[in-house]
Amino acid sequence: MKKSPLQKARAAYQPKLPIVLTGAVKVVEGKPTQSVADQEKIQQLFPNTYGLPELTFEKNTTPTAGKPINVGVILSGGQAPGGHNVICGLFDGIKKIHRDSRLFGFLMGPGGLVDHKYVELTASIIDEYRNTGGFDIIGSGRTKLETKEQFDSGLVILKELGIKALVIIGGDDSNTNAAVLAEYYKSINAGVQVIGCPKTIDGDLKNECIETSFGFDTATKVYSEVIGNIQRDCNSAKKYWHFIKLMGRSASHIALECALQTQPNVCIISEEVEAKNLTLDQVVDSIAQTVVARANDGKNFGIVLIPEGLIEFIPAIKKLIKELNNVIALNEKEIQGLATEELEKFILSHLSEENAATIATLPATVARQLMLDRDPHGNVQVSLIETEKLLSEMVGKRLAQLAEQGVFKGKFSALHHFFGYEGRCADPSNFDADYCYALGFNAACLINAGVTGYMSSIRNLVKPSVQWLAGGIPITMMMNIEHRNGADKPVIQKALVRLDGAPFKYFAAHRDEWALNTCYVYPGPIQYFGPAEICDQPSRTLALEHQTL
Amino acid sequence: MKKSPLQKARAAYQPKLPIVLTGAVKVVEGKPTQSVADQEKIQQLFPNTYGLPELTFEKNTTPTAGKPINVGVILSGGQAPGGHNVICGLFDGIKKIHRDSRLFGFLMGPGGLVDHKYVELTASIIDEYRNTGGFDIIGSGRTKLETKEQFDSGLVILKELGIKALVIIGGDDSNTNAAVLAEYYKSINAGVQVIGCPKTIDGDLKNECIETSFGFDTATKVYSEVIGNIQRDCNSAKKYWHFIKLMGRSASHIALECALQTQPNVCIISEEVEAKNLTLDQVVDSIAQTVVARANDGKNFGIVLIPEGLIEFIPAIKKLIKELNNVIALNEKEIQGLATEELEKFILSHLSEENAATIATLPATVARQLMLDRDPHGNVQVSLIETEKLLSEMVGKRLAQLAEQGVFKGKFSALHHFFGYEGRCADPSNFDADYCYALGFNAACLINAGVTGYMSSIRNLVKPSVQWLAGGIPITMMMNIEHRNGADKPVIQKALVRLDGAPFKYFAAHRDEWALNTCYVYPGPIQYFGPAEICDQPSRTLALEHQTL
Repeated sequence: MKKSPLQKARAAYQPKLPIVLTGAVKVVEGKPTQSVADQEKIQQLFPNTYGLPELTFEKNTTPTAGKPINVGVILSGGQAPGGHNVICGLFDGIKKIHRDSRLFGFLMGPGGLVDHKYVELTASIIDEYRNTGGFDIIGSGRTKLETKEQFDSGLVILKELGIKALVIIGGDDSNTNAAVLAEYYKSINAGVQVIGCPKTIDGDLKNECIETSFGFDTATKVYSEVIGNIQRDCNSAKKYWHFIKLMGRSASHIALECALQTQPNVCIISEEVEAKNLTLDQVVDSIAQTVVARANDGKNFGIVLIPEGLIEFIPAIKKLIKELNNVIALNEKEIQGLATEELEKFILSHLSEENAATIATLPATVARQLMLDRDPHGNVQVSLIETEKLLSEMVGKRLAQLAEQGVFKGKFSALHHFFGYEGRCADPSNFDADYCYALGFNAACLINAGVTGYMSSIRNLVKPSVQWLAGGIPITMMMNIEHRNGADKPVIQKALVRLDGAPFKYFAAHRDEWALNTCYVYPGPIQYFGPAEICDQPSRTLALEHQTL
Repeated sequence: MKKSPLQKARAAYQPKLPIVLTGAVKVVEGKPTQSVADQEKIQQLFPNTYGLPELTFEKNTTPTAGKPINVGVILSGGQAPGGHNVICGLFDGIKKIHRDSRLFGFLMGPGGLVDHKYVELTASIIDEYRNTGGFDIIGSGRTKLETKEQFDSGLVILKELGIKALVIIGGDDSNTNAAVLAEYYKSINAGVQVIGCPKTIDGDLKNECIETSFGFDTATKVYSEVIGNIQRDCNSAKKYWHFIKLMGRSASHIALECALQTQPNVCIISEEVEAKNLTLDQVVDSIAQTVVARANDGKNFGIVLIPEGLIEFIPAIKKLIKELNNVIALNEKEIQGLATEELEKFILSHLSEENAATIATLPATVARQLMLDRDPHGNVQVSLIETEKLLSEMVGKRLAQLAEQGVFKGKFSALHHFFGYEGRCADPSNFDADYCYALGFNAACLINAGVTGYMSSIRNLVKPSVQWLAGGIPITMMMNIEHRNGADKPVIQKALVRLDGAPFKYFAAHRDEWALNTCYVYPGPIQYFGPAEICDQPSRTLALEHQTL
């Protein structure tokens, strides 16, 4: 494998482990825990793993000798920077317990466990992946571990390999499934512990006990780098409006963090659009107003950040999509074989007045896409909609009206970008490299403590990494019951952007100034070798949430 | 202006000046020069500035005292990383000649000279922009300095400000115009020297005397960073083909350099497509073959790099575009007011058999775009074509045929990216920061030497920057006569990718291996503070051209 000079240099980086994890640890048990909501139902579903205590690790002055242990590890879902370091930390952690411990990686996600596809991760493999981005060490996948058949099939290979603990690195859904698996294995006395690690660039897996998911820091720094570069271009050419869509369907943390880092003219936060019950027209209007105000000041350029999930947060469009899905599901036979135009007519004639009015506000191409493009389950494919182009097209039309009225006298020329894949597999920042290594190493400590159904927890993250705290959180503690796909399910609560949270409040307090003036900040590329104020800073979201800004 | 921590740290970076420029310099004259072709014609057009000698600067042990000089500077055309440092180097250079020297920046490109819009660049302004990306210090623009009226209007303000020398920072066209302006001012004894500086991320302004244009190094490093990140994602998820278009319409240097840095599965080089007289179908076929070969090896993923200008290099499409433009120009009256479908019919019926056959091979949307979308001059808008989507769509169709024939048994799912604006205004790499500063400082030395019609030249660029050589090249030396827009014009020869050059030959020797295997290299983000092998390397194109790899 040919390596870039930076790859070679980063291989030698030694992540900074929290001091509490540098020697032998002892487990300090907190009080029994409760789920965040629906306590009774969650307890019924998790009789063996509900109510466990929070765990904290402290230095142990009288350690006992460890025994070799075989551990399995799975990468689940979308890539996030630092996943390799979780595995490296886990490897080093179990090797520290006993040098004969072994680590097995299941290939291409949870499916590897079910299908018995795995590789033993030896020191020579691990050393190739230290501090690197990507999930390519064992691959990842989106198979959901949900059924008893899957659990039982997995147990066969776990037994065969003598694996006593399984670490699942994933987002909220994967950790929910980890909890279900932990409960099941406990209930049948399978003798396999299950530990989760909080991964997702989207930043929506966090709560009082998990300060942030890994990958968010690096991904938002990469996006902010290129947004900053585009801002500098924008402010040099002074003739384009750049509409930049950012990955993250179910929450706007990425867009908000990037806005805090780069100070664009406009940043839409989906959670605010939903809370204020805004229509798409109102969102478009507010952007158009900013374009007009800047044009009046001689500035025919600007930057608009858009979260990928925006469309699904707009209440009117959410209703429309729901009815579209219903109309199609209820009339499967009638619409089969209809030509495009007939199908469109059929659907339009079956929509409620309100939803027909909503669809009439959309550009024809988008309306057609919503009506005609279906995923394999027959559902509307919202993710195919190029929201950045949709918005700029609608803003352009609105500005044309305003120009006719003599209100808009400027020029409007739009360019479009979408950033997602650019950041999911970047080399982890020092923060994510350290955080992930600690999460993995800490998972080994949880395994050594003999517990199951816990998520690896590293806290105090706004402090230098040596001061971080380590422990474990019962996954059931983060759960509530939600109605998904027609059934009540226990799930980890998704963390949306809180409009009363410090990051949003900081943004809201400054956005008017950023809109009219040009206050762009240019973060530049992630640095690994410079002074700490450049290389070792956590995200601004984290800093604001913990009031260190 | 709020600044990121990296912005603050980079402000303190002191570019490494070539040793020859660190003290007083003396001018060493070479032999009289000739233009690269059409010597007689060029000499006729440039009677006062043709045949000048190459200049080299050496240390001067017996310097004389300098006099204050007022200098003007213009940023022309598209942004390129390092432009600010050219201006900073120029400022420091003329201040070193005499502390009372003054620098004036004309605003928003050459138009600022014509329209008398300028700002004096004082030390406090200059210090805000050291080592930063962008052209926002004075803005840039695409007005072409070509007419006597423009030259005379410019002279009025130059005289008013007492400016004795004008530095034009631009690409091949802007430097051509600089030479014309130098000739004109010399011919009327205006007393204003004109000096050019070689700028363009495209890398197509280079020759025996100019090793590279500035900005190419940084821009390709930014693109390679995100391409590398996408490759890592691609190799982790193992389910997508990423089609990545890269800026650069008139040459494929950017795509080639990025390929050398990242080792993708496919990289199309427009110059090769033209030289081999390939059709679009043949290009599509070759990509499809690679997809099939990888699928046979169980790899349903890959990376394809595409230069922005590809379409215009394909001989068949070039012919088609030419005829389309002709048909429209010759039938202006007939087609006025025609509805879309009638217009399409009209155009199709007026195409030659050969070109009608070519247009029939294109996807309907692209064919329609070629026929219907016009720029303000009535020409086909090739730049609007999303070449990356065009190619992946055609590859998809070809694969569907191959699947029916039982040849292709894999899956093909494509994602698309276009990188351009992400790199044009990035903070300059150490290489570009040093190179640009030296170009500007050296321009001050050329001004002090009293010459005009020269381009600032810094050579020996694969060596550490202290060993670089400095001097000046008569711009006429790089010129030939080309037929553009219906007239013979003296222009600087554009440097295309040479198929017999070391960079292409290295690529060609390795691409089969890169296609079938997965040999991705992940360059990571530009680093400023680490070891020299990470922070101070020139582009691979430059290294290969000068045989240091």
